[in-house]
Amino acid sequence: MRDAALNRGTTIVVQDPYLYYAKLTQLWRRRYGEWKGDESVGAGGWIHPSAVVHPQAEVHQSARIGPLCVVERGARVGAGSELTSRVSLGYDCIIGERCIVHPGVVIGADGFGFAKDGERWEKIEQLGAVWIGNDVEIGANTCIDRGALSDTVIEDGVKLDNLIQIGHNVRIGRNTAIAGSVAVAGSATIGANCTVGGGSLVSGHLTIADGVHLSGCSCVSKSITKPGVYTGVFPLDEHGDWERNAATLRQLHRLRERIRHLERERQP
Amino acid sequence: MRDAALNRGTTIVVQDPYLYYAKLTQLWRRRYGEWKGDESVGAGGWIHPSAVVHPQAEVHQSARIGPLCVVERGARVGAGSELTSRVSLGYDCIIGERCIVHPGVVIGADGFGFAKDGERWEKIEQLGAVWIGNDVEIGANTCIDRGALSDTVIEDGVKLDNLIQIGHNVRIGRNTAIAGSVAVAGSATIGANCTVGGGSLVSGHLTIADGVHLSGCSCVSKSITKPGVYTGVFPLDEHGDWERNAATLRQLHRLRERIRHLERERQP
Amino acid sequence: MRDAALNRGTTIVVQDPYLYYAKLTQLWRRRYGEWKGDESVGAGGWIHPSAVVHPQAEVHQSARIGPLCVVERGARVGAGSELTSRVSLGYDCIIGERCIVHPGVVIGADGFGFAKDGERWEKIEQLGAVWIGNDVEIGANTCIDRGALSDTVIEDGVKLDNLIQIGHNVRIGRNTAIAGSVAVAGSATIGANCTVGGGSLVSGHLTIADGVHLSGCSCVSKSITKPGVYTGVFPLDEHGDWERNAATLRQLHRLRERIRHLERERQP
Repeated sequence: MRDAALNRGTTIVVQDPYLYYAKLTQLWRRRYGEWKGDESVGAGGWIHPSAVVHPQAEVHQSARIGPLCVVERGARVGAGSELTSRVSLGYDCIIGERCIVHPGVVIGADGFGFAKDGERWEKIEQLGAVWIGNDVEIGANTCIDRGALSDTVIEDGVKLDNLIQIGHNVRIGRNTAIAGSVAVAGSATIGANCTVGGGSLVSGHLTIADGVHLSGCSCVSKSITKPGVYTGVFPLDEHGDWERNAATLRQLHRLRERIRHLERERQP
Repeated sequence: MRDAALNRGTTIVVQDPYLYYAKLTQLWRRRYGEWKGDESVGAGGWIHPSAVVHPQAEVHQSARIGPLCVVERGARVGAGSELTSRVSLGYDCIIGERCIVHPGVVIGADGFGFAKDGERWEKIEQLGAVWIGNDVEIGANTCIDRGALSDTVIEDGVKLDNLIQIGHNVRIGRNTAIAGSVAVAGSATIGANCTVGGGSLVSGHLTIADGVHLSGCSCVSKSITKPGVYTGVFPLDEHGDWERNAATLRQLHRLRERIRHLERERQP
Repeated sequence: MRDAALNRGTTIVVQDPYLYYAKLTQLWRRRYGEWKGDESVGAGGWIHPSAVVHPQAEVHQSARIGPLCVVERGARVGAGSELTSRVSLGYDCIIGERCIVHPGVVIGADGFGFAKDGERWEKIEQLGAVWIGNDVEIGANTCIDRGALSDTVIEDGVKLDNLIQIGHNVRIGRNTAIAGSVAVAGSATIGANCTVGGGSLVSGHLTIADGVHLSGCSCVSKSITKPGVYTGVFPLDEHGDWERNAATLRQLHRLRERIRHLERERQP
């Protein structure tokens, strides 16, 4: 019916025009084919000859491993998923169905774990892996570290933009979308249906509830237990004005004391 | 003449010593040759045998495609430009003349576009490309996404440092320089001759005028219409002092009310 | 003795359980072998056939160069070090012994150096290299730029997480650990035994003393001369509360003036 509408050039009133637009772009893409340059994608699985795929990795016959990817031993790529090009998928890491992984992504590098031995750091071997659900999209040069003992988990429908850092043992809930250049530190849990604005930081070992929307450039250092919109951004200003306010900010606690003092004085 | 001066060891007074130093380093480099390890760069175009270049990509005969790059169908690389190594250039994306693209760069991955369908995200296919002008330098592991419908545009003379995220349909004006780890969200327009300090965030769908200088670590969430220097950084402090001031900051609006109250009281 | 304890399942009381755990993970890993998929690692040096290694690079016979790495002319990799996969090691850059370099890392791309020539930027060729000590670990997609004239230096025992940007001529002291998505701008010096929290920015041309601990999401714009914990984070809040406080913050300097005024008035 949508095809018919397109052909006839009729006006269509749709309930959700943005969603309709999304579907139109998909239609366009299917019609005008695969631009990327590898026409040889067939019905069976497809691995570019330049990719390095371990014989004990499992690539579904409808999956696609693009040029110059590395897929290590025991890794699994599910039906209809695509590693576009120059993607690293570490040993024992699992990608579900219909996922898109953009160039430069690293899944399953070691998490950042060390124990102090005097002044030296002793490496904690990262013995977990990464588990990625279905319908997940991962942007260019994003990194998802393997877990320390259990796995790092990205649930179904999660969308990650470019240059995101996901630490070991993080868990990201269904359909959560995270914009570019965000860092999620180790063992943080982000709920389902959240959105995280670009450039934000989520500290480690905390929990963010379902339905939380975090503004860009914000820093989460405590758990968030209620859905809602949260922000923590220093407002931008002309440099001279900023300088005066920032200098005063360093005395803010003392200013409060001075106000308290004035309030006390006024009632003799 | 400069060569002569160098040979004779004479003292040279130059108008702009830093610019002169830049030219000296270029001279040095030309004299002592190409260190990088690929002596086989000739007068004609040069593609490393390990690179994966689609037969329908156009690489100028004076361009250089280094090891393990991926150049997709319909992509174009102009005269004198170099993809150093491990660069991805997506289908239909265009790089002008005399550009330098450092390792790990991803040009033309999909922009981050989704429409909500209930709780699910429906992918908006990204049908635009990336257009990069002349004399552009792009730092290691930086990502420039393809546009949703029209192109993402990087104008002549732009310099991008490492690990920068440029969202879909961003436009960056001539000779603007952006330091490392900056994120520019989708559909933002940055003017010409701007500088952006490291670690900053530019939100989407806004415009920054020509000649704006943004301090590092700052977050732009509204358009900037006048040239100048802009800053938005929480001043660093010893942790204990920070903690007191940050706690008070959360009551700042109420503090203002208390000051107002005191001001009113004092005039009976 | 530890092995015996493990086998017998006896309870062990250890002085530093976290360090003990680290050593246990290493033991486990040694026992259960090399998961990564390249069983062919032998006693001699090992270079994956897909890696591009210049004949004039020096790889120690006990080092390992994984799939799809690029090692340029004059680069050196010391005993027991591993470039996991898809790593770029630039010409003349040196890696010490027992280092681990994770996928996507770029060592020795050009530093970000330009001189203004009118409105144009003239490139300053980066003639230094990168020097990395022993026992350094470098996380996925992290970038370390080559120096402008002298080298960028990463001392022994430094641990860098993923997606970190290290500018040209930075020096990082022994055993300092830096979490993900941090940017260190050119010519900054960070002392020994420091920790830097995720998402922080260290501005260029400054010095941080030994034993400084920087909270995540903080921005260092002046030198830090004393050890201690330093923080500069705008506290996260519900968006409405944030909005009121942020608006007031822009008037903070004037608020201080009003308090001063009230204080003066009160003493006639």
